[in-house]
Amino acid sequence: MHRIRTDQVSAHLGERVKMAGWMHNLRLMGKLGFLILRDGAGVFQAVVDDPAELEKLKGLQFESVLEIEGVVTPEPRAVAGAELHDCRLTVLSPVVEPLPFEINKKELKPGLGVFLDHAPLGLRHPQKRALFRISAEIMAGFREYLNQQGFVEVQTPKIVGSATESGANVFRIDYFGRPAYLAQSPQFYKQMMVGVFERVFEVGPVFRAEKHATTRHTNEYVSLDIEMGFVQDHRDVMAMLTGVMRHMCERVARARAQEVELLKMKVPTVGETIPSLRMPDAQQLIFERYGEDCRGEPDLAPQHEVWLCQYAEQELGSEFLFITHYPTSKRPFYTMPDDQDPALTKGFDLLFRGCEIVTGGQRIHHYAQLVDNARKWGIDPEAIEGYLQAFKYGMPPHGGFAIGLERLLMQLAGLSNLRETTLFPRDLTRLSP
Amino acid sequence: MHRIRTDQVSAHLGERVKMAGWMHNLRLMGKLGFLILRDGAGVFQAVVDDPAELEKLKGLQFESVLEIEGVVTPEPRAVAGAELHDCRLTVLSPVVEPLPFEINKKELKPGLGVFLDHAPLGLRHPQKRALFRISAEIMAGFREYLNQQGFVEVQTPKIVGSATESGANVFRIDYFGRPAYLAQSPQFYKQMMVGVFERVFEVGPVFRAEKHATTRHTNEYVSLDIEMGFVQDHRDVMAMLTGVMRHMCERVARARAQEVELLKMKVPTVGETIPSLRMPDAQQLIFERYGEDCRGEPDLAPQHEVWLCQYAEQELGSEFLFITHYPTSKRPFYTMPDDQDPALTKGFDLLFRGCEIVTGGQRIHHYAQLVDNARKWGIDPEAIEGYLQAFKYGMPPHGGFAIGLERLLMQLAGLSNLRETTLFPRDLTRLSP
Repeated sequence: MHRIRTDQVSAHLGERVKMAGWMHNLRLMGKLGFLILRDGAGVFQAVVDDPAELEKLKGLQFESVLEIEGVVTPEPRAVAGAELHDCRLTVLSPVVEPLPFEINKKELKPGLGVFLDHAPLGLRHPQKRALFRISAEIMAGFREYLNQQGFVEVQTPKIVGSATESGANVFRIDYFGRPAYLAQSPQFYKQMMVGVFERVFEVGPVFRAEKHATTRHTNEYVSLDIEMGFVQDHRDVMAMLTGVMRHMCERVARARAQEVELLKMKVPTVGETIPSLRMPDAQQLIFERYGEDCRGEPDLAPQHEVWLCQYAEQELGSEFLFITHYPTSKRPFYTMPDDQDPALTKGFDLLFRGCEIVTGGQRIHHYAQLVDNARKWGIDPEAIEGYLQAFKYGMPPHGGFAIGLERLLMQLAGLSNLRETTLFPRDLTRLSP
Repeated sequence: MHRIRTDQVSAHLGERVKMAGWMHNLRLMGKLGFLILRDGAGVFQAVVDDPAELEKLKGLQFESVLEIEGVVTPEPRAVAGAELHDCRLTVLSPVVEPLPFEINKKELKPGLGVFLDHAPLGLRHPQKRALFRISAEIMAGFREYLNQQGFVEVQTPKIVGSATESGANVFRIDYFGRPAYLAQSPQFYKQMMVGVFERVFEVGPVFRAEKHATTRHTNEYVSLDIEMGFVQDHRDVMAMLTGVMRHMCERVARARAQEVELLKMKVPTVGETIPSLRMPDAQQLIFERYGEDCRGEPDLAPQHEVWLCQYAEQELGSEFLFITHYPTSKRPFYTMPDDQDPALTKGFDLLFRGCEIVTGGQRIHHYAQLVDNARKWGIDPEAIEGYLQAFKYGMPPHGGFAIGLERLLMQLAGLSNLRETTLFPRDLTRLSP
């Protein structure tokens, strides 16, 4: 007998079928056992009435893996409108040790630390499954949109011979006795690939050896990167990001409606354009509206991002807000300076519900200017010769951005710690599981 | 004026348009300049006749980046059936240094070393672009098929606290003063995620600190990984692989027909099933057919794989061949032993045109057996506690496989070195670009 999954039962009403999954829950009422079987697709109720079959469940803990043969029987009171009757059980993998916490209740009880220590178990909770299905859908939406826009997917190396952007905050590797580093971003490679395909994207891990322990930083995360050639300036890149973001949100809302509902997630509507503020204007606005004088500071503090998003929502009706023209001093050496004021850049961040989730901008495309800037930033052009080569042999005006997958998901889901939206987070203290 | 790409010209016949790209080629014939402009989509010819415009091209090398305004004019003799007339040029990025090699000839001339040293330039060659567009299509086909089959995409950590499989051949990282490692594969994580989603896949980098320098090994490559629960045995996994392989090949042939043609690539037809040989039988066959006695050896040598594929093609009409039942001693500790002969495993490799491109198998799903095996393989269960946890809390019979993306592409394209199908390869001597 061919096994069917819980999302296939409606096509088998009245038939005897085989199902398999985890014992998500079990209620014993008199001589009846109401067993909730969970598989990759969902949950389904099996009613066990044969004493010999019930006997097989004795001493078994939740999460035991079972195979159940039974008849799919219409039952209006059951969640799926049907349940499994006349069941025969086979225990595939018994669980005999008590679970460290319950995963068949509506909410997960343990604190974050305990949860993460038991992630292989905890991730089985329906809310967690819903969250990471949405994560997969975000990635699929990202790729789908960019493929439609003529982008080509690339996979670039994560082991690099020189520190990508600054030399700080990189993990060092012993590469056959030579020093090497883990890429902080695919930045250099995606730019080089603009010379090849004009438009490229990459979904992959990035590594930051940052020593600060905050709720919105981890040391390895997934970056959704694009880079595109022949832009007028950073605004073309912002328009592409707006389109990507709209498409991802629409896809999540449509394809993961059930998960969105389970998590009570509010998926935002992304308009034709997202409002935008220049950094100096944003700082002036904070000063006038919230009374803190951060004018002239090189970067925004988390509280500033919260205020700016509050302003954007209340006054501009948008949960998203672009901040442009960050100071040159705070952006990497390859960032295009503003034409009018070279102390500012054509770089931008995208804020969403109080937190930066994307960084991007236009890049410098002239070889001499780039070499010159590298030197000013204290980077030896020799060390990045491979990267600079692309510019020596002709690069168009271009720009790109990087979306932090886990940050976007955290803000979408209204969660407060990146470790909740990372399958197996890496931070100062956590290297396993 | 809005820029159009070279694949959009047919919709603009007779119109004045703006195009932009790289100066791929330029022939001067009397007072006419025939300029081939290359952009992300393809190439297009512009005829420059104004002396003032031709003057702008003086001293410019190929690969200079240009913007051209002109009228799309039907011209039956031109490759695209049209060309650009009455052109006005703007030089966006001039190239003034001679190129190290030509990239506008049908074939790339430089040897592999010179090519790789100049990858940002060399990858712009139309054959290279075609190759890596096919690479992107393979990935898209992989995901598409698995999404249809109910798999969920995951992203698992590449920095791990303990060496994934054996402790040998791992790169060591300094993780805030603690030792950590680069994941040799997502093996442990994809297995843990079977407990969550039942069926998962991942596309990502893997890292092997192998010291041998061969044409079919690099130290970082892209692995197309799946893991699936509730299998009967390894044959269910092989059936899934057969389906994936068929879908990827069909998609490449359909969606990348132009690139396939340019590269004279022979995309194989994958039948309903792929023939399969048990390892001992394969060795016996080599002995009888090719005269070399490798019976009882724990692994196949490259020449053996060549012979077996030759046999499969000649006698079984298949360019693919499964080899199953590799010896337990040569497979990782988590590999499911064969029921009849525990010295052999339910592990398999898939050979294609003389080279192994996939490794997979059924895994052990019982906690006690897995802990026992870890010890036998000299692995401390404490060090992999997070992984083992998944098994303590209920794991179904499961299995999976890993396709080497660059190897598959190498065999598809009939190339002889993995460095030709890796954008920026990493090996014993190469860390940049």
